[in-house]
Amino acid sequence: MTPRRTALKRQKKNRKKIRRLLVLWVFLWEKGYQETDSVVSSVTTKVKGVTLTNTSTLGPRIWDVADYVIPPQEENSVFVMTNVILTLNQRQDRCPEVGSALILPCVGGSLHSPVFPGIQTGECIPYNNSIKTCEVLAWCPVEDDYHIPKPAFLQEAENFTILVKNNIWYPKFNFSKRNILPTINSTYLKNCIYDSQTDPFCPIFRLGKIVEAAGQNFQEMAVEGGVMALQINWDCNLDRAASHCVPKYSFRRLDNKDSAHTVSPGYNFRFAKYYKDTNGTESRTLVKAYGIRFDIIVFGKAGKFDVIPTMINIGSGLALFGVATVLCDIVVLYCMKKRYYYREKKYKYVEDYELVSMSESKVPSSSDSGESLKEDEESPHQMGILNHSFEET
Amino acid sequence: MTPRRTALKRQKKNRKKIRRLLVLWVFLWEKGYQETDSVVSSVTTKVKGVTLTNTSTLGPRIWDVADYVIPPQEENSVFVMTNVILTLNQRQDRCPEVGSALILPCVGGSLHSPVFPGIQTGECIPYNNSIKTCEVLAWCPVEDDYHIPKPAFLQEAENFTILVKNNIWYPKFNFSKRNILPTINSTYLKNCIYDSQTDPFCPIFRLGKIVEAAGQNFQEMAVEGGVMALQINWDCNLDRAASHCVPKYSFRRLDNKDSAHTVSPGYNFRFAKYYKDTNGTESRTLVKAYGIRFDIIVFGKAGKFDVIPTMINIGSGLALFGVATVLCDIVVLYCMKKRYYYREKKYKYVEDYELVSMSESKVPSSSDSGESLKEDEESPHQMGILNHSFEET
Amino acid sequence: MTPRRTALKRQKKNRKKIRRLLVLWVFLWEKGYQETDSVVSSVTTKVKGVTLTNTSTLGPRIWDVADYVIPPQEENSVFVMTNVILTLNQRQDRCPEVGSALILPCVGGSLHSPVFPGIQTGECIPYNNSIKTCEVLAWCPVEDDYHIPKPAFLQEAENFTILVKNNIWYPKFNFSKRNILPTINSTYLKNCIYDSQTDPFCPIFRLGKIVEAAGQNFQEMAVEGGVMALQINWDCNLDRAASHCVPKYSFRRLDNKDSAHTVSPGYNFRFAKYYKDTNGTESRTLVKAYGIRFDIIVFGKAGKFDVIPTMINIGSGLALFGVATVLCDIVVLYCMKKRYYYREKKYKYVEDYELVSMSESKVPSSSDSGESLKEDEESPHQMGILNHSFEET
Repeated sequence: MTPRRTALKRQKKNRKKIRRLLVLWVFLWEKGYQETDSVVSSVTTKVKGVTLTNTSTLGPRIWDVADYVIPPQEENSVFVMTNVILTLNQRQDRCPEVGSALILPCVGGSLHSPVFPGIQTGECIPYNNSIKTCEVLAWCPVEDDYHIPKPAFLQEAENFTILVKNNIWYPKFNFSKRNILPTINSTYLKNCIYDSQTDPFCPIFRLGKIVEAAGQNFQEMAVEGGVMALQINWDCNLDRAASHCVPKYSFRRLDNKDSAHTVSPGYNFRFAKYYKDTNGTESRTLVKAYGIRFDIIVFGKAGKFDVIPTMINIGSGLALFGVATVLCDIVVLYCMKKRYYYREKKYKYVEDYELVSMSESKVPSSSDSGESLKEDEESPHQMGILNHSFEET
Repeated sequence: MTPRRTALKRQKKNRKKIRRLLVLWVFLWEKGYQETDSVVSSVTTKVKGVTLTNTSTLGPRIWDVADYVIPPQEENSVFVMTNVILTLNQRQDRCPEVGSALILPCVGGSLHSPVFPGIQTGECIPYNNSIKTCEVLAWCPVEDDYHIPKPAFLQEAENFTILVKNNIWYPKFNFSKRNILPTINSTYLKNCIYDSQTDPFCPIFRLGKIVEAAGQNFQEMAVEGGVMALQINWDCNLDRAASHCVPKYSFRRLDNKDSAHTVSPGYNFRFAKYYKDTNGTESRTLVKAYGIRFDIIVFGKAGKFDVIPTMINIGSGLALFGVATVLCDIVVLYCMKKRYYYREKKYKYVEDYELVSMSESKVPSSSDSGESLKEDEESPHQMGILNHSFEET
Repeated sequence: MTPRRTALKRQKKNRKKIRRLLVLWVFLWEKGYQETDSVVSSVTTKVKGVTLTNTSTLGPRIWDVADYVIPPQEENSVFVMTNVILTLNQRQDRCPEVGSALILPCVGGSLHSPVFPGIQTGECIPYNNSIKTCEVLAWCPVEDDYHIPKPAFLQEAENFTILVKNNIWYPKFNFSKRNILPTINSTYLKNCIYDSQTDPFCPIFRLGKIVEAAGQNFQEMAVEGGVMALQINWDCNLDRAASHCVPKYSFRRLDNKDSAHTVSPGYNFRFAKYYKDTNGTESRTLVKAYGIRFDIIVFGKAGKFDVIPTMINIGSGLALFGVATVLCDIVVLYCMKKRYYYREKKYKYVEDYELVSMSESKVPSSSDSGESLKEDEESPHQMGILNHSFEET
């Protein structure tokens, strides 16, 4: 063989190596041989913890789960009240407005504005010895949420724990698993607290730790409330043993701390407890509950070997070889030291060939018209690197 | 060159143009170079609005958020009561049935049918001066939900507003964003109302407008209730600046208006407020709440450049060139004006070649058996357009 | 033609057949010509049923929907209370602990442990005539949940029914449908009960049947509660008529029966009903509600013909032909009876050719350098089966 031939052979060998690496990479790293499925999930939660508060209006008071988890059960979420503004003994009545209304002039007529807690009657009545405000038809006395308790009323919620039970299912593979792993016994479960380092599979979380893991300060967050994500990631390779498919927990704050770009920062909502006295008159305790809502967000993908994606990806992979060919050509013809030699070789030949075929067509040989056409059909193989690879693929 | 050759060359050029357009189309239009991810979302809502009702049984009464939003908080949903049937002072007792039972004969013995509000004792007792109905063990008096208030009791709910805070996250790209855009300041947020034309990014929605945007009539819907979808679409191209990734709101009615194909049209549910008198006897107010449930449905996909899908799609695209070849052949050979010329050209050659190869094989040239076989290997290239393209790909 | 040639032709024909079968399989079975979309869903539920209980503490008592569905409405879920531990007339007070504390020594000082229902004062006080337990600040009397009622208090919940209304939507195709099919009339809906054999499209489910269909025992499950999945599968081929897109129901238990690997088996939560006496002193009834939560899990994919995935899959399919070629070669050369003949044929030729090309290159013919190079370019086609197919694809 001539040295020029050897060089071309080497080029071809390099090309093949890159091809094989590419296919391996796409195939193994991206798991191209697997069918995938998205997770279907079900979550239940249980909060534990008791705290004692002592204020002048309420006196000493114990708060347990039935008092601070509202509503008592939700599907993928749990709300723990950390701060509260109680307005006791509200009745349907007429009374003076409070709060932001204090600085507004008392104007009548503007019925039904959403910022007012009731319907304005148009009258002005004394709010206290010095100020008059608008009279409203409302649940009276009207809530004064201007002063939020600080530190948070239920600041000990930091030590409450939440047990998360999560059951996942991959419908395509009919594979289901629970976040309480079969390797964990009930004694461990009764005492453990989740810790990313020491107890990564304990499903019981201390509220303070969740908030801390998201880079937030619990006591700060407890004042105005907020929304936390407790994320459970179930990325599973079902070609391996089921015991390798385990949950990974992470934590993130979901609401906007930046009060400049938000309305009603934090997280709160209002609800009421209704009472009736002996006359049958209804009264209520209005509760403006600030607190942390923990959204349990479950996501993940499972993959399992399946012949269809394997073949499709092999197909794509093989087609991809065309790209490798182009890349090799570019490297060899434009980047390598001996590129001028290779290039000359490659393109010179094309010219040669064209001349040859031109001369051939000028001198038509009756018996060989088929062959000359065949050569023309093949000519793109040699005309340029791009065409070359396109024909090949 | 002969004119026949020129024609074949032109055909080949057209083919290549179509190929390039195809790959561009698949690639750019379908964003074949992007890895995609599905949205993970968290939603909080806050309703505002107060209304006054005045009925003979209740007298003047103010309704605020704590009265008409039930339960006070949900994960991706909020229910606003628009109509209500109250049954006051229910006690555990024996009493006559009402409602649909009025037209049924009073039959005893059929214990426990789900359509009755209680357990039948088997006795018949007077319901009023003229009618007797079955006696039931139930919370008495039994609810009479035969006559739904019309217009809706809380018809002013049309003017209530709902603030939707939505936080989305694309786990694969670790990209998160809120529907309260950073370009919006808090002054704007305090006064704006969503409008698809003037305020497309205001996260505060007037209930009446939501229903109207879905092509429904609020006052009609308010009577029996319904379910509305407030859809937030987060289709994001993360190759562009994050500021281009914005929510798109749309609205749709989810329940079936067509009462012929549904049971219990609209949307309602029952709950009770429990009271105790001084003797400790429990009574309750049964509330049959009709209203509109707003489901906040968040969906969308994000795409970002990634080398793997790029290569896989280039691979598929290149393989696709084979299809383009076939299409070109079909166009050239069956649809173009000069098709007879091209066709004759193409197929005539095949026959020629077959004859040649036949004659060649009949006259075996000992030194050239390899070459003749090689030609045979190539022959499908010319035998027909389909085979041609298959070999090529 | 020589017999050797005929054999090679047959081999080639077999190869093509396998290729075509493969492409058909991938294409039709896997619906490679379809664009797919995931389901967006909205669910409402309505439970019906009344039951009567008769206990010494409560007397005869009727339980209806407002009593046992808690909270009254949820988004994709409904909880039906089947068992209950009521602690009546709790007040904020000091009282002795019960339950697990009975067997623990009464130790003071350990303030605030989540397993206790209150805050320990450090005192020991008589619980009954024989035992002393720790005194706690709590809602007194403290709940004694040591003895769960068995059989379940509301065991008749087995006969309650649940109506599930599900509206699905495929955003990409703007296709929406309800699980109450248009072919079903309201008379049927008023009386039907779902049965996988006789009434597969009736949206009303008997609780007992759901649990039974999941292979569980309702009365057993009712005691400690549990979580059931009511799965609705909406796999739709939108190339067919919309009437073929129908829901498929299935049932599964989601919580862990195996008490060794779980904490707080079953499903329960606590909530309270608050009362006020004439002095304004608050009392509450603590309810520990055991029951079955039915999670309505909606999943599915819709497919519809679309030109892009069609072309991408044709591309991949064509590329896949390379794989078919390799498989054919393997079958023909290694598995078939006449394999020795084919093999010899194939490889013998290569050697021949190599010798020929070697001799050619040794005797350079000035006018034909182009052709000899061309042959070299082609040579991998014959050098080995693997290289052969790679070049071709």
